[in-house]
Amino acid sequence: MKVDGTSFRTIWEAESGGTVEIIDQTRLPHEFAVVALETMEDAARAIADMQVRGAPLIGATAAYGMALAMRQDSSESNLDHAYKTLLATRPTAVNLRWALDDMVVLLKPMHLDERQAEAYKRATDIADEDVEICSALGEHGKAIIENIWIDKGRPEQINVLTHCNAGWLATVDWGTALAPVYKAHNAGIPVHVWVDETRPRNQGAGLTCWELGQHGVPHTLIVDNVGGHLMQHGQVDLCITGTDRTTAAGDVCNKIGTYLKALAADDNGVPFYVALPGPTIDWTIKDGVRDVPIEQRDAAEVTHVTGRTEDGRIETVLISPESSAAANYAFDVTPARLVTGLITERGVADASEAGLAGLYPERAGE
Amino acid sequence: MKVDGTSFRTIWEAESGGTVEIIDQTRLPHEFAVVALETMEDAARAIADMQVRGAPLIGATAAYGMALAMRQDSSESNLDHAYKTLLATRPTAVNLRWALDDMVVLLKPMHLDERQAEAYKRATDIADEDVEICSALGEHGKAIIENIWIDKGRPEQINVLTHCNAGWLATVDWGTALAPVYKAHNAGIPVHVWVDETRPRNQGAGLTCWELGQHGVPHTLIVDNVGGHLMQHGQVDLCITGTDRTTAAGDVCNKIGTYLKALAADDNGVPFYVALPGPTIDWTIKDGVRDVPIEQRDAAEVTHVTGRTEDGRIETVLISPESSAAANYAFDVTPARLVTGLITERGVADASEAGLAGLYPERAGE
Repeated sequence: MKVDGTSFRTIWEAESGGTVEIIDQTRLPHEFAVVALETMEDAARAIADMQVRGAPLIGATAAYGMALAMRQDSSESNLDHAYKTLLATRPTAVNLRWALDDMVVLLKPMHLDERQAEAYKRATDIADEDVEICSALGEHGKAIIENIWIDKGRPEQINVLTHCNAGWLATVDWGTALAPVYKAHNAGIPVHVWVDETRPRNQGAGLTCWELGQHGVPHTLIVDNVGGHLMQHGQVDLCITGTDRTTAAGDVCNKIGTYLKALAADDNGVPFYVALPGPTIDWTIKDGVRDVPIEQRDAAEVTHVTGRTEDGRIETVLISPESSAAANYAFDVTPARLVTGLITERGVADASEAGLAGLYPERAGE
Repeated sequence: MKVDGTSFRTIWEAESGGTVEIIDQTRLPHEFAVVALETMEDAARAIADMQVRGAPLIGATAAYGMALAMRQDSSESNLDHAYKTLLATRPTAVNLRWALDDMVVLLKPMHLDERQAEAYKRATDIADEDVEICSALGEHGKAIIENIWIDKGRPEQINVLTHCNAGWLATVDWGTALAPVYKAHNAGIPVHVWVDETRPRNQGAGLTCWELGQHGVPHTLIVDNVGGHLMQHGQVDLCITGTDRTTAAGDVCNKIGTYLKALAADDNGVPFYVALPGPTIDWTIKDGVRDVPIEQRDAAEVTHVTGRTEDGRIETVLISPESSAAANYAFDVTPARLVTGLITERGVADASEAGLAGLYPERAGE
């Protein structure tokens, strides 16, 4: 999508078969910086330090990390070393393991001197496939937005509420939750986005606001507490969020607080959609509330907030008493009963076992 | 309640009939500072700048503000001027108007030279009455906590979730939502409080954590997004919040985000109580969602966060892009159907017209 008028992806080859570049997302929204990855270690650090984040982008970065490793040394031992190093960066990321396994299956049988070229080719394919998936689900989601807009008599503004960042910064391009928004905006539908700031890491305030603003999409930042009030007063036409993990029954594990918005949407008759690439569905579990383990992160993310001072310094400030404990649950699970529909690259499914099985018959019942 | 082992109120006469002192709540939790109010203008500024906040404390401060005005100039015109100035500080605060009306009704018929002494006397009575009301509702709420604790077989910990700050800092002493917690804690019931940080102003992180910690009540800070997840997993035994305004039908207007917690409580069978002094009931309206106007505050409260740096400086940092707009709705309305009970100084009422009329027959139907 656009940054200051120029089209970008979140990861790309700066030189064919060589240096890979990324946007350093830890410096957003206050600074737009492109970082060169010259080695596998650079790629591993970019994932571990969250310069790149979002399941699809982590997968693509890991794939390019394997390619960089093959450029450095295409030996068997370095292939193993790169796999282990990259896998250890975010051990719970499903896409990371998937991309790394895919690369190893491809590269293992090859001659050493073929590995570099083929690794870059496959990494590029993985990135391109993600763009295609996001673009396709964006089209399906755009149709939902357009239909609601038409049904309401083409008002001057149609309001989408989103939580966290499931935009193009979390993928290679387009995003998941925001792909429908970008497609609708590009098609001239007057979409406006309510952006939940998404405590504790403020990905909404920092990343979603930034990418919407750069692409020219009207948006308003709100604290996570506001959505229910807006829905009570008819100021939200639909919600769209992403998901880190979707169960075979349509339960949605997403950034903490998603469940509260889904409850409010349900209470006020507001459609609540979740956008996801098919590969993020976890076909092995059904009951998300019972079976999805919820990561607990560092309490300092709750007690401390980082931002920019008026004179341009980046500072981290404590907002609570030093002696108070804090707990930091990273995700929650929204039961399928609260989800209006799952927007995928193959179309929109009911959030149910039958709905998902209908779109992914080859995976259902695994 | 206790601060570092010493008992405090939030407002008191430092010299009889003269200077009034308050705790400057804008400096908490990082600094405990007592501020002297010498004039009516000091009192107005303390309310407007939120050095004092919380409906009952605003009422008491306004009453002392009238007393300070009468010390400065007990004329008719200054009585009117003080009334208007103090009322304009927080136009939507019901207690503010109530306390000011009460003072004017008392003072208007009096000789000018009686006004100062009588104004201080009445302001002190208003403060003392608030303490009595909070203490009484605390006893009723304590019985609820105790009964739930006993019903669950006296577990090692009973978990209360609260939103915002409706503790003693929001009143003259005891608090509303936290009065039951303090009473239970003082009686040896092992209460632990989940404290919503309460964006955008972080009154939970800054004030509720501070006052619970100073009084020795176990507590854990969480972001506002977490409560639903905790309730899904049986980690909340009951919720208690305060309210700025309660309608005759039991709808509750409280800090933005309260409604989302009430929805989660309802969805998970967790009792949701609201604690309030009877005088905060607005008998003139029933449908809170329709009829309570919601204050919008400065967007900078959303885009900027203030706290303490590691080396002890108070800094304010921007967390969003400069070009992104933000909206700041201060309150929301929780419909009575989501409220298990209203804890008042006269006992616990159903959140309904009949429930409130039963406790306040002299006011109902006004």
